[in-house]
Amino acid sequence: MDIGFIGLGSMGRSIAENILKAGHGVRVWNRSRERAQPLEALGAKLVDTPADAFSGDAAFSMLADDAAVREVFATGLLDHAPRDFVHVNMATVSVAFAEAFAREHEARGIHYVAAPVMGRPDVAAAGKLTIIAAGASAAIDRVQPVLDAIGQKTWRIGATPQHANVVKLAANFALASAVETLGEASALLAGHGVAMTDFLDVITNSVFPGPVYSGYGKLIAEDRYEPAQFKARLGLKDVRLALAAAEACSTPLPIGSVVRDSLLDAIAHGDGEKDFAVLGKVAARRAGR
Amino acid sequence: MDIGFIGLGSMGRSIAENILKAGHGVRVWNRSRERAQPLEALGAKLVDTPADAFSGDAAFSMLADDAAVREVFATGLLDHAPRDFVHVNMATVSVAFAEAFAREHEARGIHYVAAPVMGRPDVAAAGKLTIIAAGASAAIDRVQPVLDAIGQKTWRIGATPQHANVVKLAANFALASAVETLGEASALLAGHGVAMTDFLDVITNSVFPGPVYSGYGKLIAEDRYEPAQFKARLGLKDVRLALAAAEACSTPLPIGSVVRDSLLDAIAHGDGEKDFAVLGKVAARRAGR
Amino acid sequence: MDIGFIGLGSMGRSIAENILKAGHGVRVWNRSRERAQPLEALGAKLVDTPADAFSGDAAFSMLADDAAVREVFATGLLDHAPRDFVHVNMATVSVAFAEAFAREHEARGIHYVAAPVMGRPDVAAAGKLTIIAAGASAAIDRVQPVLDAIGQKTWRIGATPQHANVVKLAANFALASAVETLGEASALLAGHGVAMTDFLDVITNSVFPGPVYSGYGKLIAEDRYEPAQFKARLGLKDVRLALAAAEACSTPLPIGSVVRDSLLDAIAHGDGEKDFAVLGKVAARRAGR
Amino acid sequence: MDIGFIGLGSMGRSIAENILKAGHGVRVWNRSRERAQPLEALGAKLVDTPADAFSGDAAFSMLADDAAVREVFATGLLDHAPRDFVHVNMATVSVAFAEAFAREHEARGIHYVAAPVMGRPDVAAAGKLTIIAAGASAAIDRVQPVLDAIGQKTWRIGATPQHANVVKLAANFALASAVETLGEASALLAGHGVAMTDFLDVITNSVFPGPVYSGYGKLIAEDRYEPAQFKARLGLKDVRLALAAAEACSTPLPIGSVVRDSLLDAIAHGDGEKDFAVLGKVAARRAGR
Repeated sequence: MDIGFIGLGSMGRSIAENILKAGHGVRVWNRSRERAQPLEALGAKLVDTPADAFSGDAAFSMLADDAAVREVFATGLLDHAPRDFVHVNMATVSVAFAEAFAREHEARGIHYVAAPVMGRPDVAAAGKLTIIAAGASAAIDRVQPVLDAIGQKTWRIGATPQHANVVKLAANFALASAVETLGEASALLAGHGVAMTDFLDVITNSVFPGPVYSGYGKLIAEDRYEPAQFKARLGLKDVRLALAAAEACSTPLPIGSVVRDSLLDAIAHGDGEKDFAVLGKVAARRAGR
Repeated sequence: MDIGFIGLGSMGRSIAENILKAGHGVRVWNRSRERAQPLEALGAKLVDTPADAFSGDAAFSMLADDAAVREVFATGLLDHAPRDFVHVNMATVSVAFAEAFAREHEARGIHYVAAPVMGRPDVAAAGKLTIIAAGASAAIDRVQPVLDAIGQKTWRIGATPQHANVVKLAANFALASAVETLGEASALLAGHGVAMTDFLDVITNSVFPGPVYSGYGKLIAEDRYEPAQFKARLGLKDVRLALAAAEACSTPLPIGSVVRDSLLDAIAHGDGEKDFAVLGKVAARRAGR
Repeated sequence: MDIGFIGLGSMGRSIAENILKAGHGVRVWNRSRERAQPLEALGAKLVDTPADAFSGDAAFSMLADDAAVREVFATGLLDHAPRDFVHVNMATVSVAFAEAFAREHEARGIHYVAAPVMGRPDVAAAGKLTIIAAGASAAIDRVQPVLDAIGQKTWRIGATPQHANVVKLAANFALASAVETLGEASALLAGHGVAMTDFLDVITNSVFPGPVYSGYGKLIAEDRYEPAQFKARLGLKDVRLALAAAEACSTPLPIGSVVRDSLLDAIAHGDGEKDFAVLGKVAARRAGR
Repeated sequence: MDIGFIGLGSMGRSIAENILKAGHGVRVWNRSRERAQPLEALGAKLVDTPADAFSGDAAFSMLADDAAVREVFATGLLDHAPRDFVHVNMATVSVAFAEAFAREHEARGIHYVAAPVMGRPDVAAAGKLTIIAAGASAAIDRVQPVLDAIGQKTWRIGATPQHANVVKLAANFALASAVETLGEASALLAGHGVAMTDFLDVITNSVFPGPVYSGYGKLIAEDRYEPAQFKARLGLKDVRLALAAAEACSTPLPIGSVVRDSLLDAIAHGDGEKDFAVLGKVAARRAGR
């Protein structure tokens, strides 16, 4: 396929690479052109404007947040897209923005697929992301070969694009809760002189298998928060989006509030750029340790 | 081995059965004798007093809580145990009680092993419990053949008995947090018209595998809280014990407080005997659904 | 003085009336002209555009929120103000907006005074508001005669305009906390069959005198939330602004999070237009009553 | 009247003095006899056993907590009280204990009046306590002259003794909430460079008059937590009793949970013996200040 790609952050670059490797033609645009150059060697065509990337069969965008998407699209990108074009937005944006953005596409006859992903940069590089996609079935069908190059599985959440964003935010909310919980449990264990590793051995081999409890648990057990795989500051962004999505439907998320406060505590102590697991340090500090 | 067994609740009975099936001699005592009778057919000897069970090589007890243990042992059980006797206490008791109880054993030269278990009654029946054991290594070694008949794995947490209780409570705290989180996530999803099952498909096949997210998630998705596998009222008991253990070492557990409040809400609405997953109903109610 | 007045909500109209009664010339503008007409009888001059009101010696504006202020000022109002003009903004706006808005005034040489007020509409009508003012001393001095017609006391918080907004939000945060606390206390008392009025008699005549505890306490005791003096929905707006102001300086406000969740619960149950005291109903519902 | 008095902590001693000064005969007992001696000079009779004090017309007791009351009364005090005797228990005890204790009195035909008080030691010394009394009207009538010597006002809460304890705990819960709120507000203000004293001037002269906001607010503004008038550790005791009373009637108190966590944080940092206002320090620490 003839694919445009916008946004080459650490996630975006790996994703674009995998699309290239799968044999698709890719025109890439990034605010800073240098980040795009390594892709040229892999066969990508570097273009000068977002509009140049927003053409062909479909475009994938992977931008940082609502503001970044708004800024790139403020140039009227949607007004000049070809007929029957598919735009796949992989960014974790707010539900409110996702909804409005979907309507803007619809008004112009552009197919809009929300396809936020789960997985850290190393998972993206391996082409093993979990993709949560929503939008018109036919539109997803058309880009499915590209999605298959990016992720190990695409979960389809229905025809309403922002539903994919809700699922993504709910998943990250659950992740945030688990990390905070591990931090609090660690403080409790330490208060009684019990090793966090003993606790982790028990739970990760029984009720809580999987990467979250073992991965973040290990970081907390080792009190090691750098280098960050998923920064506390970005974790707060996602918790904030979940709280906003919940507020929009008058839904209290008390756990979300707790995690938000702990993340603010982390940031206030200069740990915003450290790994999300730094919540363990916050819990320890609350307990005077 | 010649084993005494005290306490035949739904967990205790299955455990005693598995000990019998493994070929050990078992003298059983239970407050209500009828509950003990089915074990007689399997070869157990029914005894009339706790003291009759607190003899032989070792005794296992599985009583409801601190108060139940205290009551049974108030009769001076510890004063007449044979030399070199091992008492394995499988109950989920408070850390403070566990510590004091361990000292009482030590003062009388009785070996004390704290061995709380993880797993619901069906897991107990299958002999697949996760056992968290702490106490003198030699004492655990002696009862290990019996523990092997009960659980799929014994995790040893060191020589300080109450450490096993801390780990158990921390694990149940993590469980409680996960269930509350699923409840809140469900309310968020419902508020946007997204199916909980879609969300569960994504997370249980990626970041959150394992029985907790899929099992409790399913109950919440189906809004089905009976019959209860793990009752909300008993969940509150464990959260309360975790909060007390944390308070004893001046450790705030904000997530614990949130879950406690939600469980009180459930109980206030008459749902204390329903499954722990009823936290999903509480979260939905808070959102006016 | 020759005063312009923008924004005639229930607060604004009473304030404008008091300025008129104090003998000042007042040109008023409101989005809906009908609301302005009663003031004509009192001597006000009704003008057709915000710009007509943004002239003379000074202008006072009392608009609903950031968005309303932004919209009215988007027409370039600041670009045509006379030299040495003073703008007094009485709205409860976000701290971030207040700061940016102050800079916009400064860039154009317009004196900007932030003067949010405390007090319900009946207090505004009586000219007894508590005014929290910040901005250049000389600018406040010039409008002080007008402020004296509006409030019983002007508290000066220094030269940085948004500081007045911070104080206002902190005060409303404290108010919100007190109302939530009264709601929770009421649920506790009811659970033990104790009359809320007995409790209120004790505390309002001893440690908690003043209008908040007696006023909101009475509404909760009587379970009477209409007509609303201060709507739950607007209370949530202020709590949200306090949380945002706190987040901007990485400050957790756990109490703020609790109140936010309770207010969402109220709104989810259709009580957003009822009095803030409806938090008492939320607390009772949590307790199954 | 012929009065017995048990328990001469800092509150008890001032109360006993005021009873003596009002002309009543007072037999005093205290665990440590030295603390009682200063009262001898004022005309008190020092007695050797609690039973010696639990005689005459009535006895007042002011002990630290449930455990202290239980210990003193474990000696069978209630079994030997004279007919028609009135016992006035001024301690802040748990509601559950108060209820059981009232029943024990009733079973023996002893009149039981629960009369917890509000006010710090200096208020007690001045005879200006706020007394919250519950029990049979006739019994309170009989001791009213003594209560009048102790407090400026006795609030009668009905015939069920423990209702007085519920009111007392609810009042202290409200106090705790106000102090936490002031702490959080202070952190918010500091984050924006606004003086806490400016904020306090505004609110204590308008919506929040009275001793709580001005008194605790001043301590927080001055970051001065010693000497303690009301220790954080004792504040936690009262919050814990309020949470327990609420749990007994399945009533969530989210604000209570927040304050409990903050107090644990204070204690974990070695500030348990400092004034309750040290919650301001906790809030500042959470914000990295």
